[in-house]
Formats: sequence, C-alpha cells, structure tokens
Amino acid sequence: MQGQQSFEKDSIQLKKIHDEALSNQQAYDVWLTHIAKEIGARLAGSEELDEMIAYTEKELQKLGVDKVWKQEVEVPHWERGDQEEAFIISEGKKQKTDILALGGSAKTPTNGLQAKVIEVQSIEELKELGKSKIEGKIVFFNRPMDATLINTFEAYSKAGDQRFAGPEKAAKLGAVGAIVRSMTLRQDDVPHTGATFFRELAKEDYIPAATISLNGADLLSKTLKENPETEFFFKQNPRHLEPVKSYNVIAEITGSEFPDEYIIVGGHSDSWDVGEGAHDDGAGIVQSMEVLRLFKTLSYKPKRSIRAVLFVNEENGAKGAQKYAEQVKKDKEEHIFAIESDAGGFVPRGFIFDPDTPDHVRKKIMGWKALFAPYDLHSFEKQGSGVDISFLKNDRIVLSGLAPDSQRYFDIHHSDNDVLEAVNPRELQLGAAAMASLIYLVDQHGF
Amino acid sequence: MQGQQSFEKDSIQLKKIHDEALSNQQAYDVWLTHIAKEIGARLAGSEELDEMIAYTEKELQKLGVDKVWKQEVEVPHWERGDQEEAFIISEGKKQKTDILALGGSAKTPTNGLQAKVIEVQSIEELKELGKSKIEGKIVFFNRPMDATLINTFEAYSKAGDQRFAGPEKAAKLGAVGAIVRSMTLRQDDVPHTGATFFRELAKEDYIPAATISLNGADLLSKTLKENPETEFFFKQNPRHLEPVKSYNVIAEITGSEFPDEYIIVGGHSDSWDVGEGAHDDGAGIVQSMEVLRLFKTLSYKPKRSIRAVLFVNEENGAKGAQKYAEQVKKDKEEHIFAIESDAGGFVPRGFIFDPDTPDHVRKKIMGWKALFAPYDLHSFEKQGSGVDISFLKNDRIVLSGLAPDSQRYFDIHHSDNDVLEAVNPRELQLGAAAMASLIYLVDQHGF
Repeated sequence: MQGQQSFEKDSIQLKKIHDEALSNQQAYDVWLTHIAKEIGARLAGSEELDEMIAYTEKELQKLGVDKVWKQEVEVPHWERGDQEEAFIISEGKKQKTDILALGGSAKTPTNGLQAKVIEVQSIEELKELGKSKIEGKIVFFNRPMDATLINTFEAYSKAGDQRFAGPEKAAKLGAVGAIVRSMTLRQDDVPHTGATFFRELAKEDYIPAATISLNGADLLSKTLKENPETEFFFKQNPRHLEPVKSYNVIAEITGSEFPDEYIIVGGHSDSWDVGEGAHDDGAGIVQSMEVLRLFKTLSYKPKRSIRAVLFVNEENGAKGAQKYAEQVKKDKEEHIFAIESDAGGFVPRGFIFDPDTPDHVRKKIMGWKALFAPYDLHSFEKQGSGVDISFLKNDRIVLSGLAPDSQRYFDIHHSDNDVLEAVNPRELQLGAAAMASLIYLVDQHGF
Repeated sequence: MQGQQSFEKDSIQLKKIHDEALSNQQAYDVWLTHIAKEIGARLAGSEELDEMIAYTEKELQKLGVDKVWKQEVEVPHWERGDQEEAFIISEGKKQKTDILALGGSAKTPTNGLQAKVIEVQSIEELKELGKSKIEGKIVFFNRPMDATLINTFEAYSKAGDQRFAGPEKAAKLGAVGAIVRSMTLRQDDVPHTGATFFRELAKEDYIPAATISLNGADLLSKTLKENPETEFFFKQNPRHLEPVKSYNVIAEITGSEFPDEYIIVGGHSDSWDVGEGAHDDGAGIVQSMEVLRLFKTLSYKPKRSIRAVLFVNEENGAKGAQKYAEQVKKDKEEHIFAIESDAGGFVPRGFIFDPDTPDHVRKKIMGWKALFAPYDLHSFEKQGSGVDISFLKNDRIVLSGLAPDSQRYFDIHHSDNDVLEAVNPRELQLGAAAMASLIYLVDQHGF
C-alpha cells in the first residue's frame, strides 16, 4: 500500500521535473548559447576557460542555491599554436590533407617533417614490425572504429589505444612522427583531436603526432597501397607551457534531513580547442546547472545535499576531478551517489552504472524502472560512469552516467563539428530531466 | 528446444542485417544525397516528382529484385507561386514576418490582403465567437504544440486541427483569411507548411491561408495584446491546376514458399515544396529500398513476397495509397503485413502498431522483443501505423510503423530545415535495419 502511494508521489514529481524542463529552455537559449557562441572552445590554460569558470559561477549564484564556490586546481597548459599543414606525397604529386595536432604532442621542425610512412592497424602490429621497420618513419595508425557496434562508445574504446598510446609506442621504436585515423564514424574531411600521452618518455623524446580526417586517412592508405614509397609531410608547432591555476566550480543545495550525505551531478567545464565544446561538455555543464535550477524552480527541498560539480580539465589531465576527490577524502564527506553527463546532449536512453554497483542497489534502481518508462528511459546497464567521478570510487558511493543515444556523438567529438547547432534543445532538456529524476529518487529513498 | 534454435537462428540473421546496414551507407551517400541535393523538394504535380519516380525506379531495378513496376495514379496539382510576403501592422509600424501559404489554400488579391486580426486558440473558440466577431477578419490560430508531451507526434496531432480544418471553419464564418501558428516546437523564423482542406466549400469560397513561424506568431500575439486594432497584411498567389498523371513505384522479391502472401514496406516519394524532403520522406523511401537491398545482399530468399512501395502524393491527397489499396482489393492480393516509415530518419526506438492489432499478433511480436534488445529497439506500442498503408486496413493485415525518436522531427517537418544535413547516416541505417529485421521475422514465422 505504501509502495503504491510512494509510486504515485514519485511519478507526480518526475512529471513535474519533465514538464518544467520541457517548458523552459534557459539551459539552451541562455547558458549553452553563451558558452558556445560567446566563450567557445576552452582548453585548460586558455583565457576562454577562465571566462567559462567566471560565467558558470555567476549563473549558479543567480539560482539562489545555498552555496557556490570555486576550488583551486593546477592544470596543464598545452597550446596548439599555428594551424597545421599536411601533404601526402607520392610520385611527385602533393595532396593536401586535414590534420590536427594531438593534445600533448610535440612540434615538428620549424619547416615541417617529411618521412616515409608505415601503416599499422594496431599497437601489436607495430611491435611485431619492430625497430628495424619503424625507425625514421612516420607511423600511421589506421584501425577504424567498428561501425557495426550499436553503442559507438564501445567502438571508440576499442580503437582508442592508437590515439592515447600509439604515438608513444611508435616513438619508443624510433618513429619520427605519428598520424592517427580520427576516432569518428563520419566519413568527411574533419579531423578529431584528443589527448595522447608520452608517460614513459622525457619531454625531449616526445614526437609530433596528429590526427587525420577519415577522407585523409583513406586517401593516405590508398596512396600507400599504390606506392609504398609514399611520404607524408606535416608541420605543427604546439607548445607545452607551465601549469596554470584554474578552478572547479561547485554549487550546493544543502540537505534538510541528511546534510552530510552528498549527491553530485557533474560535467566538465573545459573542452578541446576546436569547435565550440557544445556537446563536449557544454551540454553536461548546463544539464548539471539545470538540475539545480529544476529543484529550485519546483521548490523541491532535498533531504540530502545536492551538488553540481563543474570539473575542470577533464580533456587533458583530469586534474579537477582528482582535486575534488582529494578534498572529499580530506573532509571525510560521505558521497552516496554521483552522476556524470559527458556523453553529449543527445536524447537520453537511460543511465549507465559502474560495473561494481552492488546487487541490492541495482535491484532498487530496477524497481524505479516503471517510473522512467513514460520518458522513454529504458536502459540501465552496468557499463561505467564517467571519467571525472571515477576518482570518487569507493565501497559506498554509487557511480552513474547519463546515457544519451550515442549514434551522433563521434560525428562531433573533439572537432569543429561540435557546435551549438548540433545540440537539440529538447534532447538536452530531457537529459537534464532524466538526471534530476534519478537524483530525486536517490534523495528520497537512498540505496 | 526448437524455440531456442529458432531464437539463435533469428538472432544471427538480425545481426547480419544490422552489420550490413551499418557497414554500407549507399542509402545515404548515394540515394538520399541524390534525392535531396539533385532532385530536391517534389510536390505532387512537379517535374521534380517525375524525376524522383524515374530515379527510384531505375535504382530499384539495379538491385536485381524480381519485379519493378509503376502504378499510374492521378494526383492533385497545387502550386505555391511567388514567395509570400507578410507584415504585422500596428500604430503605423510595419514589421515583416515569415509565412508560407498552406497547401490547398487560395491566393490573396494581387496586391495582397490586409485586415484586422482575431486570435483564437481553437476551432471551438472560433465557433463561440461566431460570425459577428469573425466576418471580414483574418483569423489567427495560435494554439502551440504542447512541449511537455514526450512524443512530439502526440503534440502535433493535438494542435493539427487548426491547420487541417481551421481555415475552412473560419471561411464559413466570413473570415477573409487565416494565419496558423507553425506546427513545430522550435522557436525560430522558419514557417512550416502543410495541407489545409476546404472540403465543404466551392473552390471560389476558399480563403487564403498561411502558416507563420513561431517568432512571427509570438510577435503577432504580443502586438495584438498591445493593440487590438493590429492588422495583418499578406500576399500569396498559389494556383490550383488540373490533376496530373503520376505513379507509385513498386519493387518485389517474390516469395519462395507463399508467393501470394505479401509483406510491404513503404514511404512516400513526394514531399512539400520547401527544403529537400530529406527526412519527410526521403528517409522512408531510401529505407524501404534499403530493406530490399539488405535482403538481396545477404542472399535472403523470403518465403513470402516482399514489396517496397513508394507511394506518391501522401502530402496532399494520398492518391497513391488509395490507388495501391484499390488494386490490392481488385487483384485479391493477401497482404499480411505492412510497415511504413514516415516519421523521419531518426534513431529508431522500436515500432508502432495499429490499435486494432489482435492480441495473438501482439503476443507474437512481444515474443520477439529479446531479439530487438541488442539494437536498443524497445518500444512496441499500439499507437497507429502510417497514412499510406492505412488504406489497406482490413481484418487480416497487420499495420505497423517504424518509430524513430521523435524529438527533432518537428524542427524540420514541412520546412526549409528538412535537408540532407539534418539526417544522420547511422540513424537512417538503423531504421532500415529495424524494419528489415521485423519483416524477416514476420516472413519466417507469420502471425
């Protein structure tokens, strides 16, 4: 009987949350529009990121929540420098192609770097070829994302080692440069950047590494098949600068009953330095802010303390996430639930949960499934959570992620395609409403 | 045991269908690109529609199916004429606004029509106001689509009577013109056209009727509140021409075991005369063709006869659908299943079924649910099917529709926003694969 009453009460609250989210598009019309069009791309260390931090702090203060503060973090500072140039050179013919330096990679000599190319499908293949075949060459990592995987994040993670780790492995075998096929499923001329790491090398041993568009990668591969003597030329001059001071921005509605139990919703304030960072992760930022706006607008007084955490520097260091987690540990704050939105502002399918989520929690969540059905939220898989909240992992916290439909994400990810126009206001708002709904249920019922 | 074997066999076939659909983007790269960019908008009676019919017939022939033919149909011929002009006039100030004549509506006097405006929220309100308040005025139907409905088609159907029937009801009460708020949830300057009907009036009593963008509608409403004497001016010169000869295009893979049982998949070849008809219904056309391509490429030999039917004239008459249904009746062809794709080429959520679908059929379909789960196809509601296949309704046929996610559909519907770039190739292909999968199951197992 009580179960039935609680279901009805919860179902009314979820309806209120969705109605408000779909009737008010401030998160898109005001916040995301400002972030994408007035601030734009905002890599760690940039002035734009400083603007982003100031803007989101100010907007959160306007919501009338209980506390808004900044948490100081030191973040890396890498700059792309001038626009890259690249050519495929075969039998006296030079064909221009589109590349972007990978974040963290080195510069080429001032006049560029030209060398023969060796194409590999994997790091394993690279290792099998060995130093004799690799030395002095540009390694071309060309394994495509698997288009047949329905969840494109799965395809991304299966291809990702080439970008994260490929250039370093190539450098260790004497390669002079690395070119990586863009992590996208969209056949076009747009390269998709991202971080690469040279963790085991001294800075002077880093090599220049860039990502090439799918059209570029296919052309290079075809040219190599026709002429194995094909060379690649590229010029880029990124710089590794000294770390700079930056901030997480945190806003809190303090709990009325269990103020020392925390629920957090978050995204990341930084973005890559191309496009407008609209989906990645402007969407997650404004959705996190929107969750607090929804609760304030609906005069919902949570039992537990609910925080929106705008993590800084997810893209190339996750220093903000590490700092937040350290502080939580130091202050012995009990975080019971965290949800992250960093998979784009697309229409939500449901949620993902950390694979270690205990069975009794999973059972409780599955008990809420019928409440989510009217909103087409049907997917509740143990597939992970998010990079930023992963640092909070311990035995007690439940880690979760918003799970938007993934089909379009890698069309825009880390590229010039990630602009406001690629975000649909209703899809964005449905994501915020989904997270607010789950947070409401956790706040009311605990685990 | 047999159930388990059948499940495994079916699940392998569904995987093959999806793998092929996601690995080959001919439907987008070749077909839809040609339809949107080379042919473009193609209203009944236009040369572009003739081109569309010739192109799709030729492409279907290339697939090597058993039969491809055209079925002659007489279709209405209405032409927009020159670009419309419109102004809101209040206290000596003229503000330009964006309108589109509604399909089937009349022209204004050559120099335009200017009159006082009366805003109503519904046809009921119009009737209550009565002839004395309406006569000589322009009626402004301004009820918005309900943004809080998750399924935007529901919001569309709840607002639609204003456009279909509003102008005629206004004309009967002596209105000189009608302006209808665009059926969209996207706040912008883009008007969304569509059909209006004057079924009970003689042609000389039709009135000019146009649709106004959301920004225009909101401005007009605001201006009217400030000044009830506000007038509206508009100029349009559409023409009702004589009906012309056109065609359904039909392609068939003949069944190996029950050739006289038919399964059809369809969309409509015509579009409104704005944008490129990419989602509506270029998507449904290329998905229907893709279903046959998938079966041919996978060398699947159906038990039953499977047809792709490219219906003509869905937008303003459905004459193609009526003709196809008549011929089926005349030839006593037993159609057991029909599925239509006319809700956009967005990521599929599942399928809809006619509300009269019998329980045993529903049970059979729900038994296939686990087969669809790997593809995030989770929705199987009795919500309808499609306009074109509805004419086939009888006691035996099961009517169904592809159910793509609906959030973005009315951003583009019947407007200049309906262009190729608004369609995502993977989302489009997943829709085709979903329909091919359901057709495969019906073909194998019947109902």
